[in-house]
Amino acid sequence: MTKYIYGRNAVLNSLKNGKIIHRILLSKSYQQDNKINDLIALARESRVPIVYADKREIEKICSTDSHQGVLAYVPPYQFVEIEDILDFAEEKKEQPFILMLDEIEDPYNFGSLIRSSVAAGVHGIIIPAKKQAELSPTVVKVSTGAVDNILIAKTSNLVNCAQKLKDKGLWIIGTHQMAKESYLNLDYKIPLVLIIGNEGKGMSRLLTENCDYLIKIPMATDLIDSLNASVAGALVIFKIMEKRKFGK
Amino acid sequence: MTKYIYGRNAVLNSLKNGKIIHRILLSKSYQQDNKINDLIALARESRVPIVYADKREIEKICSTDSHQGVLAYVPPYQFVEIEDILDFAEEKKEQPFILMLDEIEDPYNFGSLIRSSVAAGVHGIIIPAKKQAELSPTVVKVSTGAVDNILIAKTSNLVNCAQKLKDKGLWIIGTHQMAKESYLNLDYKIPLVLIIGNEGKGMSRLLTENCDYLIKIPMATDLIDSLNASVAGALVIFKIMEKRKFGK
Repeated sequence: MTKYIYGRNAVLNSLKNGKIIHRILLSKSYQQDNKINDLIALARESRVPIVYADKREIEKICSTDSHQGVLAYVPPYQFVEIEDILDFAEEKKEQPFILMLDEIEDPYNFGSLIRSSVAAGVHGIIIPAKKQAELSPTVVKVSTGAVDNILIAKTSNLVNCAQKLKDKGLWIIGTHQMAKESYLNLDYKIPLVLIIGNEGKGMSRLLTENCDYLIKIPMATDLIDSLNASVAGALVIFKIMEKRKFGK
Repeated sequence: MTKYIYGRNAVLNSLKNGKIIHRILLSKSYQQDNKINDLIALARESRVPIVYADKREIEKICSTDSHQGVLAYVPPYQFVEIEDILDFAEEKKEQPFILMLDEIEDPYNFGSLIRSSVAAGVHGIIIPAKKQAELSPTVVKVSTGAVDNILIAKTSNLVNCAQKLKDKGLWIIGTHQMAKESYLNLDYKIPLVLIIGNEGKGMSRLLTENCDYLIKIPMATDLIDSLNASVAGALVIFKIMEKRKFGK
């Protein structure tokens, strides 16, 4: 879906990861700091053409002024199969740790969840084919290019997909503010799928019914009844990493 | 600074908290669900006039289409003094837990940090008077109105402010990805100020030098070197709540 990406970190990260980049547009009216120098050096090394452009030209392409003077044309994002995510976990000799997003609509949340997933060693992300924020240039920007470092699979039916993963021995963990169990108490040293629900509606009823565990994030107050989806996701993702890695 | 707020949760929350609202603009072309019915009932109860308006009129006022058909005119936000935050902690008979933001520029990060702070029982937030995202309608929307439930103080000099708080017996904890100490290991059962730095530059050098503790968030990979500021903040904020409340 992405045909271009923008932002210093996103483009620099793509170069560092040896991703295919057709062409980079660079505006000279932005600060030429170390990051930009690194970017130019890496692009030359990888023989990626750099074209100097007016910042308004870049703005016109990406319809936003948050491009930081850098835009790169790239091939469409290559989605993977769910099997690839399981294979990747096996290669790393780790219990599968998959994030499933149930219709996350906000590109900021989607991008932020990608970044947190990479940071905490999630093996892959499963998203629904519809009603989900697309892998847009904004999502790539918010993820600061971390999208290059994670496997993402699309499915036409999250419930079927969850059932198939259950059949393969994975445990399905859903987040729900009405759950009795706190996210602090589970062990997480099991092959697992963590589901984060839609910003307004939460997880769908059918998907909720298919969960092996439902967990909530305890709060200090009842003045507020939910957290931002990217924050809730990050808290559980990092708790899983903490329990697995530091054995607490 | 805020003269109007928008979004269903933000306006509903303001009504629930008994805040002064001069007038509500409501668009009929949006879904009239339970939340809107609650909002109308509460507004009538509190004698807040509701004016039906075209959605384009609302869009024109707030320069965004994410108003969800609701906008409310409100008095400017009332900042507090730092003493008020310390008094509030004392009233609650809790060790002070203050969040200090060192030039957070992105309104999404600022709004999200406010929401997480309320959820985890932070007593108040200190922001610099300059180079910080203002308490704009976008910030209020992203916080889903949680800004009504937290004390916020402005200071012209964060370093002086941190030194004064140290003199009062508070410990200053900064987040820094090059720190040796993990955020998992501190005890946090001390009166404390947690500092979250700017999205790009991190904490200023002078503020860093004034920290009693510097902590980092360990990651599973070196593919990524930092987290989103609102995610990093939430992870430490909730870890402090966890250690204080659940004694781990």
